Amino acid sequence: MKWQQVAGSVTAPQGFRAAGIAAGLKPSGSPDLTAIVSEVGAIAAGVLTTSVVRAACVDLNREILESGQRVRAILCNAGQANACTGEEGWQNAQETIRLAQQALGTAEGVLIASTGRIGQQLDMPKLRAGIPQVLQAAHVQGGDEAARSILTTDLVPKAIALEAEIAGKPVRLGGIAKGSGMIHPNMATMLAFVTCDAAVGPMLWQDMTRRAADRSFNQITVDGDTSTNDMLLGLSNGQSGTPAITQADSAEARLLEEMLTEVCIYLAKAIARDGEGATCLLEVRVTGAESDRAARQMARTAAGSSLVKSALFGRDPNWGRLAAAVGRAGVPFDPQALQIQLGNFRLMEKGCPLTFDWAAAGQYLRDQAAASGTPEAQKLDAPVTVEIAVGAGPGTGQAWGCDLSYDYVK
Amino acid sequence: MKWQQVAGSVTAPQGFRAAGIAAGLKPSGSPDLTAIVSEVGAIAAGVLTTSVVRAACVDLNREILESGQRVRAILCNAGQANACTGEEGWQNAQETIRLAQQALGTAEGVLIASTGRIGQQLDMPKLRAGIPQVLQAAHVQGGDEAARSILTTDLVPKAIALEAEIAGKPVRLGGIAKGSGMIHPNMATMLAFVTCDAAVGPMLWQDMTRRAADRSFNQITVDGDTSTNDMLLGLSNGQSGTPAITQADSAEARLLEEMLTEVCIYLAKAIARDGEGATCLLEVRVTGAESDRAARQMARTAAGSSLVKSALFGRDPNWGRLAAAVGRAGVPFDPQALQIQLGNFRLMEKGCPLTFDWAAAGQYLRDQAAASGTPEAQKLDAPVTVEIAVGAGPGTGQAWGCDLSYDYVK
Repeated sequence: MKWQQVAGSVTAPQGFRAAGIAAGLKPSGSPDLTAIVSEVGAIAAGVLTTSVVRAACVDLNREILESGQRVRAILCNAGQANACTGEEGWQNAQETIRLAQQALGTAEGVLIASTGRIGQQLDMPKLRAGIPQVLQAAHVQGGDEAARSILTTDLVPKAIALEAEIAGKPVRLGGIAKGSGMIHPNMATMLAFVTCDAAVGPMLWQDMTRRAADRSFNQITVDGDTSTNDMLLGLSNGQSGTPAITQADSAEARLLEEMLTEVCIYLAKAIARDGEGATCLLEVRVTGAESDRAARQMARTAAGSSLVKSALFGRDPNWGRLAAAVGRAGVPFDPQALQIQLGNFRLMEKGCPLTFDWAAAGQYLRDQAAASGTPEAQKLDAPVTVEIAVGAGPGTGQAWGCDLSYDYVK
Repeated sequence: MKWQQVAGSVTAPQGFRAAGIAAGLKPSGSPDLTAIVSEVGAIAAGVLTTSVVRAACVDLNREILESGQRVRAILCNAGQANACTGEEGWQNAQETIRLAQQALGTAEGVLIASTGRIGQQLDMPKLRAGIPQVLQAAHVQGGDEAARSILTTDLVPKAIALEAEIAGKPVRLGGIAKGSGMIHPNMATMLAFVTCDAAVGPMLWQDMTRRAADRSFNQITVDGDTSTNDMLLGLSNGQSGTPAITQADSAEARLLEEMLTEVCIYLAKAIARDGEGATCLLEVRVTGAESDRAARQMARTAAGSSLVKSALFGRDPNWGRLAAAVGRAGVPFDPQALQIQLGNFRLMEKGCPLTFDWAAAGQYLRDQAAASGTPEAQKLDAPVTVEIAVGAGPGTGQAWGCDLSYDYVK
């Protein structure tokens, strides 16, 4: 491995500070206002929800990202999603940006994110007090705070940082996320914030971010539910002092993209695993497809199938549900080439089921669930693995999900 | 109304007989082999699963339908789906057709359907004995038997017949279906068989059948799960003695298509309602879209959303989940035009939530659930209605679903 995991998250890279405070937006009184601040204006990239019904923050971020301006901070409130709030919501979102710019004393960009109930207006008096406070509180050890204060119904915070060496100096990437593999009332939003201290070309950074999202967050969709507020934002501020990465085909660009993808996959898996009552993480890998895109679509359909997820909860090595899910993914392939493997158990070959030790395969599912820890103390390194080969093409793709338990409906 | 409901189902139209027998294919010993026979070769139409992983019966039916030959019978077995069964499964499916042709003494077409476990071979000794038996047993009062013997995990049989008058003579359409709004192990197949005694042009009949499926069965998809064996088959045998319907824009053609659509919608609603633990039927109507197709897609996304379905089970008038579902349906519209109504309660207007009596709207949901009967004694005439307006376009569409209950996961 060319990189290693290091402690911390969004403040692990040079030149980033963060904080999370209780500004009074959540009825519970938990921390609900988060700032991630870069000492200098950073290159910004983003992948935003495709929903027609979007929060104001989504459209305002799109404007900022498309303007190409440097970004000094990400500001996130939890409690109100500020979606379906009309003109007042739009004005409020604009004011939060202005408040942050004033507090930072900058005309550079501020990206904003909201999560919480739809249809409620932001509590502007509390934000007017809280925004200067959280920006002032931001510190270089604030990653953990930030990882906690962006949460809503999540069971655990999600954070990671990676380090590699470029030209003899360390380059770091850090990330935090919120979201749940299960579904919660008006709270299904997925947010992820990534920081990086490499110097990287803006378009290259955007391209990397889009591709990383396609291989991670877009591969954990639950029932296709895209929220009004979903977003991945990435800041890269060049404070590592390493040479600028501007060539897409350079070794450094490839390294940075691999690290970014790894950060995003880690966070995506943590979201997929974070479901009330979920007992294990499912990792589906599809090979032999015509393209990576086709493989990802098949993997996503299998990992997202309610039939597959409930079989997983029932510890039932049900190849039939996997075959049916891949078959309806909307991607043509030769069904006679279909091969399915669960852990070390080959369930299906040449489109037909094999005789296998059903009890032992069920035991494998129970063992992986036991190794997955509890919902509150999740482990991500022992997923149930499903490998599906659909032909001899070059396309591969992965997707993740959790099992569908009785608690799902509550 | 230009038509009326009459007693019976697939044997209500002239010149059709049906039967269902226990051939020993189901371990339970329940009826499992069904025949619907036309006295004369009928025009046949069909809409077949789009899954890549398909049962042999799907591909064999496609060949017969595309050949344009007249069809004498539909033969359906329950117990084994004959999907993922390779060359042996293909040979067995062909043999069932030959056995039926021999028993009927005809070279005309026989359409076949299978439902049950994937990956199991058909029990050919039992089918060789059962096929002549069920074809011989077919009788003009056999619709009820047929409606029962095609079932697998369904809670109730689904059957309907309609009658109208054309040129002073009665014309009838009848239909039966199996399928469940919930998901069952390897049994998620949806089958529907429709009979008609009008004389109708073959292409016109196929076009009507495709459009009726688009407005009914394709609007009840659960989690997008398309099975290996899904099909709608329609036979029209001309035995009413009414004048041939060959002009697509004639009043008679429109009447026949309306009746066919009504039969399919009734059966689709019955499938949507038939879920273990489901307590009510949801009917979503979208208006103001750019096209019917767009409206249907939005309605389907809303009715199929797990978030919406679990809110329904919780008797929670949650406009936010409806708005989010319509927003992610993949159809552009002006979110500021969004209007949502639940029963008589206007929940949202101009893209923003209204103040409404939350308790009374919750009571409406409880009342409709109470009026929906029990899972075993379903009523379809008191759905929870949701009306969603998305603009000023001409497109309208409906979709149906049930609530998502705790029993779903079992």
